[in-house]
Amino acid sequence: MIETDIPGYTYGTDAVPHSPVSLEELQLLQSTLLLGEDDLIALRRSGDLLAPQVEAILDVWYGFVGANPHLLAAFTGPDGQPDQAYLAAVRRRFGRWILDTARAEFDQAWLDYQHEIGVRHTRNGKNRTDGVQAADHIPLRYVLALLIPITTTLKPFLAEGGATPDEVEAMHKAWVKAVLLQVILWSQPYVRDGDF
Amino acid sequence: MIETDIPGYTYGTDAVPHSPVSLEELQLLQSTLLLGEDDLIALRRSGDLLAPQVEAILDVWYGFVGANPHLLAAFTGPDGQPDQAYLAAVRRRFGRWILDTARAEFDQAWLDYQHEIGVRHTRNGKNRTDGVQAADHIPLRYVLALLIPITTTLKPFLAEGGATPDEVEAMHKAWVKAVLLQVILWSQPYVRDGDF
Repeated sequence: MIETDIPGYTYGTDAVPHSPVSLEELQLLQSTLLLGEDDLIALRRSGDLLAPQVEAILDVWYGFVGANPHLLAAFTGPDGQPDQAYLAAVRRRFGRWILDTARAEFDQAWLDYQHEIGVRHTRNGKNRTDGVQAADHIPLRYVLALLIPITTTLKPFLAEGGATPDEVEAMHKAWVKAVLLQVILWSQPYVRDGDF
Repeated sequence: MIETDIPGYTYGTDAVPHSPVSLEELQLLQSTLLLGEDDLIALRRSGDLLAPQVEAILDVWYGFVGANPHLLAAFTGPDGQPDQAYLAAVRRRFGRWILDTARAEFDQAWLDYQHEIGVRHTRNGKNRTDGVQAADHIPLRYVLALLIPITTTLKPFLAEGGATPDEVEAMHKAWVKAVLLQVILWSQPYVRDGDF
């Protein structure tokens, strides 16, 4: 079951401004990442496998963040404690993000939403979606670094459901590229003008 | 044979300024990347395998860059042609970079040199080392994206020399983490103050 009514999830709506990155630039970035048609197919296959496991995956990811104070800091309120309502609100969008990544429709609406996600990690957008008072930005280095724990911990879930080892490898490889594509796009609002 | 007299290769010398990233921050970044002792061992094992193959690896990487005009642009001079002397000068340092990555000594001198490498990709440092007039910076998105072609094309070279498939996987995984660690550090001079 795919949730559709998720607070702050504005993918595909008029609430999302245009990305400063063009579709042509996205295309060049995908080719630099060697992200091809076979990866799109592998990503889409992964969606069927992952959909019933979304909550279990989020448990692992939230466990990792919770175990690392420098990451949990993103969710820490003025009282120095993790903001549970904020964690829960982000979690619903994060679950949907798994399915959206697996959908692998890298079109204008998707590109625009990547920019929106990026901005929401920076001083110019963090906390506003959920009306919370937590850390005012997430350091870019951790946004980029999460590629590894996310894709590493995903792999066992890709191996559930009867895919062959080669298929699991192909899906994992595609996920590494797709997540790197996204964290690169998310880095744009962090970067000095003209340098992205 | 490890070249030691490479123009512009200033690793470990007084010519390299201190990194703005601390060793403690480096440590947290490594742990976020799940880069542990086993990865350091795998990287060091890879050094022996890769050392005799450095020129062949560089042939592949230069072939990739040469086949992609948006990447080759980094080496393009005012006449619109690739600057061959510049390509050759960078190539010598790039070869050494393979061995330095495999050495996996992530200490202060290494950290400082990562910052230097990062700056050399930006408007504040590009072209100066080699006294050339090429593109004034490399867009950060391509610096980050090169993780995939670099580590993907490296894998067959890791499989040369008799390592088992599991050992090849371990070395490859360690390389992905080590290159991501580096491109993250290289991103620091691109990022707005305080946001890295």
